Amino acid sequence: MSQRIAVILGAGPGAGAGIARAFSKTHNVALLSRNPATLSKTQSSLPSTSTSHPFPADASDPASISSAWEAIKSHWPEGTIDVAIFNAPGGGFSPGGFLSKTPEHLERGLKAGVLGAFAFAQLFLKEAKEGTLIFTGATAALRGGANFSTLSPDKFALRSLSQTLAREFGPKNIHVAHTIIDGLIDTDRVASFAGEAKEADGRISPDEIGKAYVYLHEQARSAWTQELDLRPFTEKF
Amino acid sequence: MSQRIAVILGAGPGAGAGIARAFSKTHNVALLSRNPATLSKTQSSLPSTSTSHPFPADASDPASISSAWEAIKSHWPEGTIDVAIFNAPGGGFSPGGFLSKTPEHLERGLKAGVLGAFAFAQLFLKEAKEGTLIFTGATAALRGGANFSTLSPDKFALRSLSQTLAREFGPKNIHVAHTIIDGLIDTDRVASFAGEAKEADGRISPDEIGKAYVYLHEQARSAWTQELDLRPFTEKF
Amino acid sequence: MSQRIAVILGAGPGAGAGIARAFSKTHNVALLSRNPATLSKTQSSLPSTSTSHPFPADASDPASISSAWEAIKSHWPEGTIDVAIFNAPGGGFSPGGFLSKTPEHLERGLKAGVLGAFAFAQLFLKEAKEGTLIFTGATAALRGGANFSTLSPDKFALRSLSQTLAREFGPKNIHVAHTIIDGLIDTDRVASFAGEAKEADGRISPDEIGKAYVYLHEQARSAWTQELDLRPFTEKF
Amino acid sequence: MSQRIAVILGAGPGAGAGIARAFSKTHNVALLSRNPATLSKTQSSLPSTSTSHPFPADASDPASISSAWEAIKSHWPEGTIDVAIFNAPGGGFSPGGFLSKTPEHLERGLKAGVLGAFAFAQLFLKEAKEGTLIFTGATAALRGGANFSTLSPDKFALRSLSQTLAREFGPKNIHVAHTIIDGLIDTDRVASFAGEAKEADGRISPDEIGKAYVYLHEQARSAWTQELDLRPFTEKF
Repeated sequence: MSQRIAVILGAGPGAGAGIARAFSKTHNVALLSRNPATLSKTQSSLPSTSTSHPFPADASDPASISSAWEAIKSHWPEGTIDVAIFNAPGGGFSPGGFLSKTPEHLERGLKAGVLGAFAFAQLFLKEAKEGTLIFTGATAALRGGANFSTLSPDKFALRSLSQTLAREFGPKNIHVAHTIIDGLIDTDRVASFAGEAKEADGRISPDEIGKAYVYLHEQARSAWTQELDLRPFTEKF
Repeated sequence: MSQRIAVILGAGPGAGAGIARAFSKTHNVALLSRNPATLSKTQSSLPSTSTSHPFPADASDPASISSAWEAIKSHWPEGTIDVAIFNAPGGGFSPGGFLSKTPEHLERGLKAGVLGAFAFAQLFLKEAKEGTLIFTGATAALRGGANFSTLSPDKFALRSLSQTLAREFGPKNIHVAHTIIDGLIDTDRVASFAGEAKEADGRISPDEIGKAYVYLHEQARSAWTQELDLRPFTEKF
Repeated sequence: MSQRIAVILGAGPGAGAGIARAFSKTHNVALLSRNPATLSKTQSSLPSTSTSHPFPADASDPASISSAWEAIKSHWPEGTIDVAIFNAPGGGFSPGGFLSKTPEHLERGLKAGVLGAFAFAQLFLKEAKEGTLIFTGATAALRGGANFSTLSPDKFALRSLSQTLAREFGPKNIHVAHTIIDGLIDTDRVASFAGEAKEADGRISPDEIGKAYVYLHEQARSAWTQELDLRPFTEKF
Repeated sequence: MSQRIAVILGAGPGAGAGIARAFSKTHNVALLSRNPATLSKTQSSLPSTSTSHPFPADASDPASISSAWEAIKSHWPEGTIDVAIFNAPGGGFSPGGFLSKTPEHLERGLKAGVLGAFAFAQLFLKEAKEGTLIFTGATAALRGGANFSTLSPDKFALRSLSQTLAREFGPKNIHVAHTIIDGLIDTDRVASFAGEAKEADGRISPDEIGKAYVYLHEQARSAWTQELDLRPFTEKF
C-alpha cells in the first residue's frame, strides 16, 4: 500500500466524502472533522479496501488542528502527507439581513473559514517538499450578495489566502489551488431543506468534486491550475 | 453650522486626515483612532473654522467602537451622522514569508480590518435614513500577492462586506462604496521608509483621496459608484 | 472663452448629451454622431451660452472619424483638445439567441464598438500632451450573459483597450478611464420601450453621467481612477 | 474505431498538436489550419494508430471555416462531432506601442480571434446535441497590459463569447469552457525567440494542455468547469 497520505479537513458527507473516496484509491486518507458522527459516516462510505482514519479536529481552533496533524503522523509514521484539503464550511450557511447578525456571527466564520485554513496550510507547508494544497471555495468568494454579510467575507479571504500561497509556494513545488463550488451539492442534507433537484444532474455530485481534486493533484507542474469552478450544467451564473 | 456629522474611523495622518479635511467644509467631523497623538495631529491639520472632535476607539474592538459612537452622539446631540468612513488599516503593512507568520498575525488583521468594519457599519446602518458608508480598500483587495498572507485576506473580506452591504442598503437610500487605494500615500511616514517620490505627484495626495470621498458622498442616487480605484499617474498596475 | 475642446463621439440624447452639457461649462464641445437629427437634438439641449458644433462621423469607420477630427481642428484653429470621450454604443442593444445571430451582427459591434474606439484614441493620443480619454462601457463589459453574444464581446474588448492605454499613457500625463454604466439611462427612448421607471431616480440621469465624466477629468494626477461604475440606487447587481 | 470526431481549429505545433494528440486516443481528429505545413507537422506527431485528417481553413474567414466544416462531415459521414476546439491565435503576438499600430492590426485580431470563433461555434452548436466547446484564451483575456492594444482586446472578447455561450448552451447539454494559458508553451518556435526555459517544466507542455482539454470534455455535467487556468509552477502571475 502507498505510504502517501491525504488529509481532509472538513470530511463531512458532501464534498468531503467525495474527495475522500477519490483519494482513497491512491492514498491513506486522514478524515478530520469536529463531529465524530460525521467522521464515521464518511468513513463507512469509503471502499473497504481503502485505508483511512478519523481524527477529531475543530477547524476554528489552530491548536486543535495542530493536535490532529501530530496524531496523523503518529498513526502513519512511515507516511508522507502530499495532499492537504481544506474543505471546512467556514461560518456555515445562514443568510439574513445584516442588522439581524452580530459581530460574533462573522467572527465564527472568519475563525473557521480563514484562521483554520491559515493554520492548516502552515502545518502542511512547513513539511511538504511537494504535493497539493486545495482550498474549497464558493460562489460567495467572487461576489458579496445581499444578506451574505456573515457568509461571503470569509470566502473572499480564503480565496486571497490561496492566491498568496500559490504565488509563494508554486515555485517551491507545491501546487496550491482554490475551487469555486457554484451550486448545491447532491446530499441528503441539501435534499432535506431544498427538496429533490428538478433535473437529473442538477446538483453537484460529491464524487465529481473528488475527481476534480484528484485531477488537480495529478496535473504536471508545467501546467497547474490555480482556480477551478464547478457547477451543474443547469446552474444560473 | 451644519448639524451633519462625518465619522472617520482611522483618522490617521494619511488618507484619514485628507478625508477629514475634505468633509470638514460641510460636516462636523468625528475623528476616531486608537492613538491620541494621531488624533491631535489630524485635528491640528483641519481648518480653524471647522468643527471636529477626537474620540479614542480601537478598530479591532466592537465594544470600543460602540462606546465612541455613543460619545459622538452625546457630543453633538442635535447632529445627524450621514457619513461614515471606515479607514482603519487592518493588519498593518508587514509583508513576509508565510512560514514566518503566525495565526495571531492574521487574526489581528481580521479583527481590525473586518470585524471592526462590520461593527462600525452596524452602528451606522441601524440609525441612518440616508447617507454614505465608505470602506477604504487597497490593491491587496483584488490580488493576493506572494508574502501577503497576513495582509491580503482582510482586504478581500472588507471588499466582500462592502458589496453585500451595497446590495442590501442601496435600495434603502444608503450609498455603500469601497475604494482601491493603489499606490503609496504621500505622507511623512511613507517618506521615512521609502524615501521621496521619484516624480512630482508620484504618491497619492491625502487631500485628493478626501475629494474622492466627498465626490462619492455627493453623487446623486440615480448614479452611484460602488467601487473607485485611485492611483498615481505613474503607478504600475 | 476657453480654447479647450471636448470631443464626444456618440453625442446622442442619453449619456452623450449629459456629458456634452457637463463639459459645455468649461469647454467648446464637438458633438459627433452619424445621425444629424441626433446632433441637433443634443445641441439644442446645451446652454445657450455654451459653444458647440456638430460633426457627422460614423463610429464604425476610422476614415470618417479622422475626417471629423480634422474638421474639429479647422473649426477651432486656436483650440486644444484635452477631453476625448468615446461614447458610441457599439453593436446596439439587440439581445437574442446565439443561433439567431450572424457573424455580421457581431462584426458590426466590433467595428463600431472597438475599431472606432481604437481609431478615435489614436487621433487623440497622437497629439495630446495632457488630458482625459474616457470610454463608456457597460455591465456587459464584466459578464457575458446568455443571449448577449453580439453585445458583450465588444464591451469586453473596449474595456481591454482602456486598460492597455491607461497603462501606456498614464505615465505620459493622459488620464484614460473606462466607465461601467450599469442600468437603464433615463431617456425618452428607454421610456418608450421599457415604460416609466418604477421609482424616482430608478434610472441613471444623463446629467449625473456628465458630472462623473467631469469629475474624472478634474482628478489630480496623483489620484486617478481607471474604472468607475455608475448605477441607480435600486439596481440589482 | 469510434465515430466520434474532435475538430481543432488552430491545429498548430504548440497547444493545437497537444490537444490533437490527447483526443486522438478516443476520437477521429479533424485538424484545421490555414497553413498546410503546420497541418502535416501536427498530423505526423499523432500516434500511427490514430485517425486524423487535415482541413485547410482560415480562422479569420467564416466562409472558409464553414467549407472546412462541410468537408469534415463528408470525410467521416458516419461520424458525430462532439468536441470543438477553437485554438486560433487571434491577432498573433506582436506587442508594441499603441501609436505604432494601425486599426488594421486590431481588425485582423478581431477577425481571427473573435469573428472566427463566433462562426466556428455556430457550426458546432447548430448541430450538436451534447459535447464540448472549448476556447483557448490567454492571460491577456484578464488584463490589458501596456503595449497590448492589438493583442488583448480580442482575448477579452473571446472570453466574453465563451461566457455567453456557456450560459445559453449549458442547460442544453453543451459544455462551453474557456482556458487561460498563462505562460509560454514549450515549443521549438518559442525556444527560437526566447531561448531555452531556465528550469525544467518552466514552460507549459502541449501534451498537458491536451490532457486538460480531455479532462474538461470528460467532466460529468453535474460539475462542469467554465474557466480553467494553466501555468508553469514557476510562473509569476
